[in-house]
Amino acid sequence: MSVLPESGIISFARGIPGPELFPADELAEAAQRAFARHRATALNYGPPAGFGPLREWIALEHGAEPDQVVITPGSYILLTFLVRVLLETPGPVVVEVPSYDRANSLLRKAGARILPVRRDETGLDFARLEHYLATGERPAFCYLMPTFHNPTGTTLAMADRERLTDLAIGHDLLLVEDDPYGPLRFDGETLPSLRSLLVARGAGQLSVFMSSFSKMVAPGLRVGYGVLPEQLAQRVAAVGLDSYVSPPLWPQAEVYEFLAGGFLPAHLSRVRALLRLRRDALVTRLAAGLEGAGPRWSKPDGGYFVWLELPAQLSAADLLADCERAGVTFVPGSGFFADGGGDSSARLCFSFHAVEDIAAGADRLVAAARGRLAGLGAA
Amino acid sequence: MSVLPESGIISFARGIPGPELFPADELAEAAQRAFARHRATALNYGPPAGFGPLREWIALEHGAEPDQVVITPGSYILLTFLVRVLLETPGPVVVEVPSYDRANSLLRKAGARILPVRRDETGLDFARLEHYLATGERPAFCYLMPTFHNPTGTTLAMADRERLTDLAIGHDLLLVEDDPYGPLRFDGETLPSLRSLLVARGAGQLSVFMSSFSKMVAPGLRVGYGVLPEQLAQRVAAVGLDSYVSPPLWPQAEVYEFLAGGFLPAHLSRVRALLRLRRDALVTRLAAGLEGAGPRWSKPDGGYFVWLELPAQLSAADLLADCERAGVTFVPGSGFFADGGGDSSARLCFSFHAVEDIAAGADRLVAAARGRLAGLGAA
Repeated sequence: MSVLPESGIISFARGIPGPELFPADELAEAAQRAFARHRATALNYGPPAGFGPLREWIALEHGAEPDQVVITPGSYILLTFLVRVLLETPGPVVVEVPSYDRANSLLRKAGARILPVRRDETGLDFARLEHYLATGERPAFCYLMPTFHNPTGTTLAMADRERLTDLAIGHDLLLVEDDPYGPLRFDGETLPSLRSLLVARGAGQLSVFMSSFSKMVAPGLRVGYGVLPEQLAQRVAAVGLDSYVSPPLWPQAEVYEFLAGGFLPAHLSRVRALLRLRRDALVTRLAAGLEGAGPRWSKPDGGYFVWLELPAQLSAADLLADCERAGVTFVPGSGFFADGGGDSSARLCFSFHAVEDIAAGADRLVAAARGRLAGLGAA
Repeated sequence: MSVLPESGIISFARGIPGPELFPADELAEAAQRAFARHRATALNYGPPAGFGPLREWIALEHGAEPDQVVITPGSYILLTFLVRVLLETPGPVVVEVPSYDRANSLLRKAGARILPVRRDETGLDFARLEHYLATGERPAFCYLMPTFHNPTGTTLAMADRERLTDLAIGHDLLLVEDDPYGPLRFDGETLPSLRSLLVARGAGQLSVFMSSFSKMVAPGLRVGYGVLPEQLAQRVAAVGLDSYVSPPLWPQAEVYEFLAGGFLPAHLSRVRALLRLRRDALVTRLAAGLEGAGPRWSKPDGGYFVWLELPAQLSAADLLADCERAGVTFVPGSGFFADGGGDSSARLCFSFHAVEDIAAGADRLVAAARGRLAGLGAA
């Protein structure tokens, strides 16, 4: 069923879930349990690293100690804290290109020297990464989204994960693994996190694992978290104390009771099935309208994003202007490129709209793209 | 009924409410309404300035426009945002002495040049303030807690409020008024905020009013807010966007339904009555044990704090050491003094413990103080 806003505009732009992806009834039940069980603690000020029972749950889930877990109001602010600690003295940082646009601008503002490493559906440009590690100053860390990458939707293969683990151990390189989408896999087999590979080889001190309940449960709760080496966890929590005295413990208690109540598995199954239908609606229409016409796109096994690559002569900004007139939007790729470029690429987010609206939006996009391609004499 | 922790230690140290001060049942009901009414919006990402209906409620409460309201996870982080905006170029800032310790260290870290103005039960040192305004560079702002001040518990009289308003208007001085305790008045008459006095004289652009539902409702929700000139509100919200993308909208929706459900007035009555009993328990025991023996203390009309001033020869740090051995703690005053000093003063917070425990804690403190006073030959 179409549930478009009044404007009729279909947005593939913002990476946000549609409201029917929220487990609101289960959360309401979890909230009541939280009021019954945690009113005395979670309604008060508390530890800057977050609500104890949830820290324990996360630690258990990731084979870590509770002292390694820091819970923050969303995972983005955790990244800002981490950058403040790790780039106290600005230094080089390895980033994928493309990568999460907010992370790019955060690192730029922090004065990091960006070492870009190309990332596409074939994986990571290891030759470049090895060159950096062999020749330059040791990077402060390497920021990666191995699974259902933002913006490309791609996932690093097992061999790449092992190679990254080898490099991290060989060069004493901290891998900051940002993984909010991992649990939203609707195709294929789950791959081990970089963290689990490092831990298995006794190198857990080289791993920061970040995730969030924003995509797993609901963003408005603002419950993100990191699993970090204990000393780093302490320093990050201290930045949290300086920022907000105490994090919002109450939504953390609600999330905890949602998890403890066993609501997550069925909820994730439902979300995965919905997202799969939405991805299918998008890529099916792209294929119907653009197969063989020049553009290429990813077909992600999970997460929120399809990555669209246009022929090099075609500008995503120009296409966006046409699309906006036709009532569909997306994010042009250039903002995701820390080293410039990306002008002919676009991120299409399929998490927000109902299947019918995604199909209609894709048709509008296809028509606009075909118009541009015809103008190039390429269609 | 005593509800002491296992340690048996009675804390007058942390400024936090006791759990029986939380309206947990009413909040549970409000949460259910929030799930029924706001699941589609407040469980998602949203505006960096906060949940729309709550912004409207706050605006109405303060005779402001919703665009002037910014809601943040607690009011302290709002102060950090404000400092980032107003001290982008560090300059002089007027602060009360003593003042909120976290604000002191925040301003110091931001590179502010502190202009200290003495604050005690007789009011503010206007001679000093007028001297600054007449002779120096215009301060970036003046940070004040007019009502139930932290740490002294004192309240600026009407005449002082009017004089501050005159000075602000005469010298184009921005008054940042931090007022989390104002609604917790259990004695005397409510006085107008500096904001309302400035607005009445057409000078609302000189007011930033900050408050929070931490003391009015519950801190674990982390719902603080500011009412600011519109342009400043936009700049502060932009810092919020950079920090956490979207604030925790969900607890804001819960607070909104608590307010819209009409739960606040009865809840505040109950909290005020409890706090009054707790203050009485503390000051009655102080009077019984220390009247005429040298120390002096405030008797606040609301809020959380009693301020204890010892004879100058007696160190609060020494007294604290004795108190800790006797099972009672407090915060020595020196941290509240931006310009040093305060060694013979202490903040006693009476919000956390039950009346019996406060009385017992006060007795321990009195015994320790009498011991120290005897040592001075002063008792």
